[in-house]
Amino acid sequence: MTLDSWFTTNRTRCEADLFDLLRIASVSADRAYRTDVNRAAEWVHNALAGLKFETELVETAGNPIIFAKSPPVPGAPTALVYGHYDVQPPDPLDQWISPPFEPTVRDGNVYARGATDDKGQMLTHIKSAQAWIETAGTLPINLTYVIEGEEEVGSESLEPFIAANRERLACDCVVISDSSQFAPGQPAITYGLRGILYLELRLSGFKQDLHSGTFGGGVTNPANALCQMLASLVDANGRIQVPGFYDDVVPLSDQERKAFASLGFNEQEFCQQLGVDGLSGEAGFTNLERRWARPTCDINGIWGGYQGEGPKTVLPAKAGAKFSFRLVPNQDPKKILAAVKQHLEKICPPGIRMELIEYHGGAGVLVPLDSPYMAAASQAITRGFGRKPVMIREGGSIPIVATLREQLGADTLLLGWGLNDDNTHSPNEKFCLEDYHRGIKASAYLWEELAKIMRKSITNGK
Amino acid sequence: MTLDSWFTTNRTRCEADLFDLLRIASVSADRAYRTDVNRAAEWVHNALAGLKFETELVETAGNPIIFAKSPPVPGAPTALVYGHYDVQPPDPLDQWISPPFEPTVRDGNVYARGATDDKGQMLTHIKSAQAWIETAGTLPINLTYVIEGEEEVGSESLEPFIAANRERLACDCVVISDSSQFAPGQPAITYGLRGILYLELRLSGFKQDLHSGTFGGGVTNPANALCQMLASLVDANGRIQVPGFYDDVVPLSDQERKAFASLGFNEQEFCQQLGVDGLSGEAGFTNLERRWARPTCDINGIWGGYQGEGPKTVLPAKAGAKFSFRLVPNQDPKKILAAVKQHLEKICPPGIRMELIEYHGGAGVLVPLDSPYMAAASQAITRGFGRKPVMIREGGSIPIVATLREQLGADTLLLGWGLNDDNTHSPNEKFCLEDYHRGIKASAYLWEELAKIMRKSITNGK
Repeated sequence: MTLDSWFTTNRTRCEADLFDLLRIASVSADRAYRTDVNRAAEWVHNALAGLKFETELVETAGNPIIFAKSPPVPGAPTALVYGHYDVQPPDPLDQWISPPFEPTVRDGNVYARGATDDKGQMLTHIKSAQAWIETAGTLPINLTYVIEGEEEVGSESLEPFIAANRERLACDCVVISDSSQFAPGQPAITYGLRGILYLELRLSGFKQDLHSGTFGGGVTNPANALCQMLASLVDANGRIQVPGFYDDVVPLSDQERKAFASLGFNEQEFCQQLGVDGLSGEAGFTNLERRWARPTCDINGIWGGYQGEGPKTVLPAKAGAKFSFRLVPNQDPKKILAAVKQHLEKICPPGIRMELIEYHGGAGVLVPLDSPYMAAASQAITRGFGRKPVMIREGGSIPIVATLREQLGADTLLLGWGLNDDNTHSPNEKFCLEDYHRGIKASAYLWEELAKIMRKSITNGK
Repeated sequence: MTLDSWFTTNRTRCEADLFDLLRIASVSADRAYRTDVNRAAEWVHNALAGLKFETELVETAGNPIIFAKSPPVPGAPTALVYGHYDVQPPDPLDQWISPPFEPTVRDGNVYARGATDDKGQMLTHIKSAQAWIETAGTLPINLTYVIEGEEEVGSESLEPFIAANRERLACDCVVISDSSQFAPGQPAITYGLRGILYLELRLSGFKQDLHSGTFGGGVTNPANALCQMLASLVDANGRIQVPGFYDDVVPLSDQERKAFASLGFNEQEFCQQLGVDGLSGEAGFTNLERRWARPTCDINGIWGGYQGEGPKTVLPAKAGAKFSFRLVPNQDPKKILAAVKQHLEKICPPGIRMELIEYHGGAGVLVPLDSPYMAAASQAITRGFGRKPVMIREGGSIPIVATLREQLGADTLLLGWGLNDDNTHSPNEKFCLEDYHRGIKASAYLWEELAKIMRKSITNGK
């Protein structure tokens, strides 16, 4: 059987396996889902063990990591596939058309939490290996898999695992599919990612809620203080006001700005897709520049006082918010954390005790555009998707990309099979099933293209 | 039996009746409590009917109003007693030491939602009438009762009731106990109240939550917009920034400022009581001035995005807040609403739809200090509490006071039996039982003192 006929014959089976995995509510942010998180880890482990790979379900202080290696192909290069089986919380639940953990197909898309981020995309690289094994009986290269379960909560167990297993993880390049194509029908390779610093600010004032008439005006209201403090982070031009915040930001080159502009991003269509009548952001930058290559400060959640029906004339004793900064390459999350903390402590008003909690941080990354790996990936995607990919950056963060470069000296190929309207982290997350199949194909061709390039290097005496 | 021996004999009975009423969860802000609201109305109605007063349980578009009249005493003056049987929501429930609707006595205080606001205070004026009826067989003056069930949600049904019943409600003065003494052992008459304008701001952006990496920086985040908009309402000096907001504010007179200063307010003790290490407020004013005689802007509740455990890298599609302005006499809530709305609409950023909901508004009030009613009240309190009252203002709002003056031409005696640390609108609301009994006495003497003054006026040919 050829690879191509395997793709045709195994469509239903590939989808059924994806739906199986999507049925497991592996939410890492909430301990209530711990059993499901473990079930998802076992599912992935079994999938790789089924291919007769050397596998290990690695227990950690957090959620298990799946480590696997394909049977050795002497002289062939090694690619490390990274992915994650954990998913974001499904809230707000009432906005899902079909339940988040009952995968449902509508208009050629599968709807479920984790469909695109990252179960569907990650699975393409397991299915592509299966295709090779079940057709050629072997892979053209060596594959190493590291699939973790804490990506959505900061990958805390992954870093020590990588540091402790540098030899076992040695590779020529890393492959990650956890991002998006540029547009439907226009695949892309992502060469830049933003970093992140995710924080929670908790303010407490008086020992309990107070009457807003008797006390209002004479005490510091924690909810007022919270708004003042958070509002102070960004000015009217969308510039972040934390002293030193932009110190390490590398300006966009004219060449990159031109390349972004040439992608033909349609702001009006974008607004329509989101259901908004306008956009905003940092003055002096286009929308793609703002989302791909400029740092941000966004409130992810905010709370305090009375949230029930009707009025309640109360001064809340406490208020809090989760907020995060997307960072650009060369910004150091630790340095930014220190600056943000100093700024907030400085402006915290009398009568308020503040607590700043760090959830996770990760640096942004830029991958060289002129490597042979990039060329191989471009070729594989052209074969799998029927169209040459464009080179883009992404606003999201995959902190592990920076870690893998530091620890293994390997650059990452970010091959996004998703779409921008996949509702990642939102209700009604979806993944286009046709892109799932194209992703499996592109992945299978990638193993071949990477093998070819390495052979060429050897031939050339490099 | 004399009045004084009635007070002694009936202590337990007076307390038992109060506890009965406190057991009814008459929360007006939440429709789930509707049955209890009606039960409380019936309870008050029965208490007045039991004194053989002419009574009526008036159905309204909202909650019932209890109207009652004591048997006519020809030639005697008429006092109108206003109070309310509805209470604030009990949230946050987990902070109550004993359940909010199971009145529990600790250290001479009864703990329950509504203990001081306003069931306990209101009941003193029914118990004082009962004392007269059960001793003298009659009251020295004519009493009219208007007890409503929507005070905590804006008294919407009361205004039309008063407008439609001006003749039945005609009176020489109004008596309200819904405020506080100046300090434990130092009773007070409140001659000034702040007004209120209570609003809810709802912001919506994109049609659903978005990934903060993919979209952050290029769209308007409703939670960021909310903080910016709310923070814009007050500057670093505690001055409200809505154009025209202070136009109608009457400055405090030197005399009043001196009188406030002479009350010996201890800021350090106040901080200790609240559990804070500092205070804030409008620059250039003392704490009492800020709380009694200056307008405020306070957030009462705020929400948006992910409030669960751990991080969620999401841009919330919606965010909102309940917030309110305490107004001072001469500020018109309607005019302030228009100014606030205009200000918020002006600064609402692109990509955000705003909705501003008005819950309730009421003007502030100042009562003349030199009336014979004030003198009578001062005398009655001195007799009931054993100490001459001081003249104070209060930061809270009793919008009906302004309405009663407009509709009936009558000024109000605000005789607060509560204490500032009664946890009004907060968990563990309490009322000092000794003050409850002193209040009953002072109220009973008030009927006598008011009758004397009126007789004097007649004697003097006025």
